[in-house]
Amino acid sequence: MLKLEYQDIMNLEKYFRISLINKISGIKSANLIGTASQTGQLNLAIFNSVFHVGSKPPYLGFMMRPLSIDRHTYSNIKETGFFTINQVGAAFHQKAHQTSAKYGGDVSEFESCELTPEYIDEFPVPFVAESQIKIGLSFQEEHLIAVNDTIIMIGQIEKLIIPRKHVSSDGDIDFEKLNLVGIGGLDTYYTCRRLDRYAYARPNEETKVID
Amino acid sequence: MLKLEYQDIMNLEKYFRISLINKISGIKSANLIGTASQTGQLNLAIFNSVFHVGSKPPYLGFMMRPLSIDRHTYSNIKETGFFTINQVGAAFHQKAHQTSAKYGGDVSEFESCELTPEYIDEFPVPFVAESQIKIGLSFQEEHLIAVNDTIIMIGQIEKLIIPRKHVSSDGDIDFEKLNLVGIGGLDTYYTCRRLDRYAYARPNEETKVID
Repeated sequence: MLKLEYQDIMNLEKYFRISLINKISGIKSANLIGTASQTGQLNLAIFNSVFHVGSKPPYLGFMMRPLSIDRHTYSNIKETGFFTINQVGAAFHQKAHQTSAKYGGDVSEFESCELTPEYIDEFPVPFVAESQIKIGLSFQEEHLIAVNDTIIMIGQIEKLIIPRKHVSSDGDIDFEKLNLVGIGGLDTYYTCRRLDRYAYARPNEETKVID
Repeated sequence: MLKLEYQDIMNLEKYFRISLINKISGIKSANLIGTASQTGQLNLAIFNSVFHVGSKPPYLGFMMRPLSIDRHTYSNIKETGFFTINQVGAAFHQKAHQTSAKYGGDVSEFESCELTPEYIDEFPVPFVAESQIKIGLSFQEEHLIAVNDTIIMIGQIEKLIIPRKHVSSDGDIDFEKLNLVGIGGLDTYYTCRRLDRYAYARPNEETKVID
């Protein structure tokens, strides 16, 4: 077993630590966040930290790294109040990964990474045409994490687009059939293989598989 | 395509909405959070919201639902200052799912779900013996999300245990070989199939597969 205490982790070689600690909490969702500046400059960046906040009203959140350098996703959201979250599929995950490169503020990662901005109705910022699940959100609130200056961003879902055939009559979404990917840390991609689905668990009842 | 606006989502049938919105942001990690009350009553609950906050110092966070009912995980963490995060593997994911049932405060989900509490060194709360990745954390800070009273909890990694053979020399963790699972929403489990790993992306360079 590899057994590490806090101080051992602090003393690890830098890139070993970054990889290990980013992966230690398990598989994460792969999402592209699309934004635009007030002047219309587009930005697209991959995030592995999108999390569920609530379903009524519908909210999602994600983590921003500290603002010690320009974070275009952050400044664009603060400027326009809107952003899109777009699920990454296996078919274009390599292009999605390339958005993590540090492009300048005058570069659209849509263009440099060959992904297609898609405007839907009047929503003010573009979605990713290649994504099968597209979510448009309005910015709601942010929280500064005191221990390391990372920022939690919370948005409300204003628009949601998903292929109807991959949503079951009771609201299940099949990630395997959609061929969605997950991420280990910052660099390793996984596809999802469906194992099983369970009924709402109750004390003193057997765990029931529902399909 | 299924296309929903904010108000359409609000008007969805309740269980359809809960399933859809919990799954819309993609695959999530499956972790059991272990805690103990001041009097030694153990608690274990599955969470799909653990996220990376930082690697130096090493921090993880997770979401708590509103405190409108007793949340033993929350009250125990506030009482003792410690908790464990334990990765769920395919071999025991059904038992892990059963911890989501609403057991009373005097019930240990370790016992009722047949999972084994494991005390390691002097760490004050138990790990899950069945988990291959075990993380012990100290509570650091919490943030109340204003829009819906959910709570973000942040902990510092004090102890980390992982099978050495599944950590590469550069800090990669192979989720497929560990047979870890991810979750879709609250009820659907997936195994992970490794697709590829990429080098740190740079502008104007080809995306490089590293293994």
